[in-house]
Amino acid sequence: MTTAQLTDQIQKKQSFLCIGLDVDLNKIPTHLLKEDDPIFAFNKAIIDATHHLCVAYKPNTAFYEAYGLKGWKALEKTIDYINEKHPEIFTIADAKRGDIGNTSRMYAKAFLEDLAFDSVTVAPYMGKDSVEPFLEFKDKHTILLALTSNQGAFDFQTKTIEDKEVYKHVLETSKTWDNAQNLMYVVGATKAEFLSDIRKIIPEAFLLVPGVGAQGGSLSEVCKYGMTKSVGLLVNSSRGIIYASNSEDFAQSAAKKAQALQEQMAVELKA
Amino acid sequence: MTTAQLTDQIQKKQSFLCIGLDVDLNKIPTHLLKEDDPIFAFNKAIIDATHHLCVAYKPNTAFYEAYGLKGWKALEKTIDYINEKHPEIFTIADAKRGDIGNTSRMYAKAFLEDLAFDSVTVAPYMGKDSVEPFLEFKDKHTILLALTSNQGAFDFQTKTIEDKEVYKHVLETSKTWDNAQNLMYVVGATKAEFLSDIRKIIPEAFLLVPGVGAQGGSLSEVCKYGMTKSVGLLVNSSRGIIYASNSEDFAQSAAKKAQALQEQMAVELKA
Repeated sequence: MTTAQLTDQIQKKQSFLCIGLDVDLNKIPTHLLKEDDPIFAFNKAIIDATHHLCVAYKPNTAFYEAYGLKGWKALEKTIDYINEKHPEIFTIADAKRGDIGNTSRMYAKAFLEDLAFDSVTVAPYMGKDSVEPFLEFKDKHTILLALTSNQGAFDFQTKTIEDKEVYKHVLETSKTWDNAQNLMYVVGATKAEFLSDIRKIIPEAFLLVPGVGAQGGSLSEVCKYGMTKSVGLLVNSSRGIIYASNSEDFAQSAAKKAQALQEQMAVELKA
Repeated sequence: MTTAQLTDQIQKKQSFLCIGLDVDLNKIPTHLLKEDDPIFAFNKAIIDATHHLCVAYKPNTAFYEAYGLKGWKALEKTIDYINEKHPEIFTIADAKRGDIGNTSRMYAKAFLEDLAFDSVTVAPYMGKDSVEPFLEFKDKHTILLALTSNQGAFDFQTKTIEDKEVYKHVLETSKTWDNAQNLMYVVGATKAEFLSDIRKIIPEAFLLVPGVGAQGGSLSEVCKYGMTKSVGLLVNSSRGIIYASNSEDFAQSAAKKAQALQEQMAVELKA
């Protein structure tokens, strides 16, 4: 998917919501545990109830790997279901991978080619040759960790190298890499006040913004400092939406939470 | 496994060799492709031929994820085979994971509990709360990326924060984390000259050292600057050993390459 197509969808749906599909079998409604594949059953119900309210889905691979083969199978079924039923929706493998070039190439193949995600999140620590193999795929996107939503972001990311924080070096350096036009960036909603500085370095790139909801970030602050003329934002909520209820009506409850966010987003898009 | 048990094995085998099981179906002997599970068949043959020469095996998860469900199944069979046949061998899931705490916990469960690896590699970019969930497992080890073997290591890792390089901040900061005694570190053999500085910060911790072989690092330099009284080194070779030959004798050829390294290691251990 191109970024222009993504922006079109955002305008059409008046939403830049990304829903995180982080399925924990201890948190889903117990009646689903009787299903053959409870993880996929849960995701399918959530997708069926929310696809008109969001523009992206983001399964975090940790939640699938934690269930071994069954988990990996559920991940395959989930991405196949989205790609088949809702090809207009942008898909993100939240995998935070990154390795030497030879190895990153295998990860890129796994997520962008075989599983056919539109994008994958990648960690920057190993530098240029660990990220470029992901950037080679046309109309696919590499979402580089810049400034993450967690407390640990202050351990290294905000430390200063030659009067400039590490995450700003990541942003600036990454712009020089081959196929940098395929880069997007993770910036946590909990650090919205950093966004105006970030926009000076990457004025147009899409940002994937986690941390609204369970982690406490503010949607309006994110929009105030981070929104571009063509929006340039995907705001993610995972637990705040998918675990809105754990009874039979869980999918409808999730849709209500998603709709509340979508309505706030429509207001921001008009402003 | 405890580090004392690992050191015992090193002394017993006169080897601190780790063999990287990075299976690429384009590189393995073609006669194996007829097998039900060519990846496992390859690994089993390599393990059977080399287990007496090495103290650790390190499958890199990228090479398994690249084959989807079949790959994940082969990874499970490989670790189960090692744990059953050779429980004295230290196992490393080279996964380079790292996410917010809630999510890192799922990865830790996947690799250290369900798959029952002795250790997992983790990226430091997201800081303390992204790593500590891995450190909670008793007698399991978290191998933190410090200074990696690739060229991209110079993009961020060696940049200077307040007169000290990023990787040194990673080493020093990580020592303050809960259960830091379960930390080991990745330091590339291609950067052996950095090891004496690194040993000033972490005098005793085990280092996983990739980059000998295909990447060009020197074993004797690594030992000169990095070896401790209780050795403290696991030197990895992947492609240099497992792809020594791609004909019927591939496992014997791999064993010869492994033995050559083991013999060099025995000399270093006596020195």
